[in-house]
Amino acid sequence: MKAIVVKQPGGAEQLKMSEQSKPEIKQDELLIRVKSAAINRTDIISRKRGPSYLHNPILGVEVAGIVEESGSNTTTEVGTRVMGLVNGGGYAEYAVMPANRAMIIPDKLSFDEAAAIPEVFLTAFQTLFWLGDLHKNETVLVHAGGSGVGTAAIQLAKQLADAKVITTAGSQEKLNFCQSLGADIGINYKEQSFEEEVLKATNNQGVELILDFIGASYFNKNLASIKTDGRWILIGLLGGSQLKNINLMELMAKRIQLKGTLLTPRTDDYKAELTKAFVQKAMPLFEQNKLKPIVDKIYSFGDVQKAHTRMESNQNIGKIILKID
Amino acid sequence: MKAIVVKQPGGAEQLKMSEQSKPEIKQDELLIRVKSAAINRTDIISRKRGPSYLHNPILGVEVAGIVEESGSNTTTEVGTRVMGLVNGGGYAEYAVMPANRAMIIPDKLSFDEAAAIPEVFLTAFQTLFWLGDLHKNETVLVHAGGSGVGTAAIQLAKQLADAKVITTAGSQEKLNFCQSLGADIGINYKEQSFEEEVLKATNNQGVELILDFIGASYFNKNLASIKTDGRWILIGLLGGSQLKNINLMELMAKRIQLKGTLLTPRTDDYKAELTKAFVQKAMPLFEQNKLKPIVDKIYSFGDVQKAHTRMESNQNIGKIILKID
Repeated sequence: MKAIVVKQPGGAEQLKMSEQSKPEIKQDELLIRVKSAAINRTDIISRKRGPSYLHNPILGVEVAGIVEESGSNTTTEVGTRVMGLVNGGGYAEYAVMPANRAMIIPDKLSFDEAAAIPEVFLTAFQTLFWLGDLHKNETVLVHAGGSGVGTAAIQLAKQLADAKVITTAGSQEKLNFCQSLGADIGINYKEQSFEEEVLKATNNQGVELILDFIGASYFNKNLASIKTDGRWILIGLLGGSQLKNINLMELMAKRIQLKGTLLTPRTDDYKAELTKAFVQKAMPLFEQNKLKPIVDKIYSFGDVQKAHTRMESNQNIGKIILKID
Repeated sequence: MKAIVVKQPGGAEQLKMSEQSKPEIKQDELLIRVKSAAINRTDIISRKRGPSYLHNPILGVEVAGIVEESGSNTTTEVGTRVMGLVNGGGYAEYAVMPANRAMIIPDKLSFDEAAAIPEVFLTAFQTLFWLGDLHKNETVLVHAGGSGVGTAAIQLAKQLADAKVITTAGSQEKLNFCQSLGADIGINYKEQSFEEEVLKATNNQGVELILDFIGASYFNKNLASIKTDGRWILIGLLGGSQLKNINLMELMAKRIQLKGTLLTPRTDDYKAELTKAFVQKAMPLFEQNKLKPIVDKIYSFGDVQKAHTRMESNQNIGKIILKID
């Protein structure tokens, strides 16, 4: 089968179409005929680290497709349309998916749309509710509102918690889009000082929850934007990882909970539990049109280098999809 | 009545015995004839900030004494021996205590011993269990093991969770004492690299929980000492507050939960709930001799300046007590 591997650590030019053997499944796994895969920042990190760090030489952590073969311990029937997280191997014609991570694709959604759901919606769900403990009528600050996780988080915060959503982004186009998804307030971080705008919008109290994909460059501004007893979830380092001149007193005096997280390295059991909770609470809302996958751009399988380049330049609003078939 | 106030922001010499009017109570409060008060670092911070920052001009956040008068909404009888947190005003002959924070003193304990309990045991209880979620057989790293909260935390972690306790301190005398309280491993931070010792003692896994009174100077070493998915509770800044050159990637990749906390500024309701939970879970263990208050030294009321000086020089093992009567 055709699949994308990494030649050596480096830029998008290191991505290579190759011929690989079709994977074999264990009794609790499904073999998926992949129709669409999606690009994630974790794939870019894997590409930069190079093939020697990859457990699975084929990139890609989420797919949508058709069940081609079912393990003896599974109940999902061959032919079912499913989407879900995979342990690498997503950029390929066939991929292995643990059966307890397979989510049935609603009839109304295409494979391209379905591939835009698992990673970002599961991450946003986990971050907002499992780690962030978001409650009704609280205020959440979602940075990088136009990103894949940002667009998912805005929708989930509104639909599942009726929260007030403040979002930051770097263009008016992205902010308008965030507001069309339900964001209450949009702040252009290139033109405004976001912490001042957050305090204005919260009667100088700050927000109960921050979803932080930025890290170091926003750290002091996030400290200023958060309310006493606030929760702050660190899920990305787009603004760097090296902290300098941070005053821990504020973290202590405001009784802040700062939690780091990454979804991809978590255990199989964790991903299965998260998938189960998400299916119960959020999947019905896709059927009802209250949640929607946000597809930025669809690339053909051979154009994977272009797909990576687009994500690295932060041009996308929502998910970048790779059409396998 | 006699009470200690602060003349102006500064050192221990700013503490002054003064004549103050006896406080009046509301219907849900108790008037306590104070027998013993205890010194806390928050008192030192208050002294340094000076009188204009004090809600109550009299220092002191915890006392042990006898109920002199009961508000109409309370059930605690006059004459009862109680201990508990107060909203300032502890260094005085009489103090006001919200009735829902009063803990009955076990018969076997003196007032001096009782005054050594509330702040440090409630803080350690809250930090280990409410914030730190310590479970049976986990490993906890308790810094400043000889401090008031340290000595309480070692005992509570052993008695309530049967945890493995690793502690740091700056002298062999303090470490020996910590081990007499149940600490499994003692590390002299002046002679050893504590993070290396922690990793050795945990099969290179790190600890599930850190109680951090130190802050900035230990930050990178704590990052190295904590296990994936570990909890790290920041409750003091003895090692400074200014962070420099911290790599956030570690916090994210290890999925660390870093929580800041301070007990004194929390709400009355919070303190009442915490007191209630502590009385249920921990007070019986004082009766059974499984937990004991650690009294470092007892000063007479007039020697309050000496008491502060002793705490500021970190000489104490356990609590410094002020004998009021």
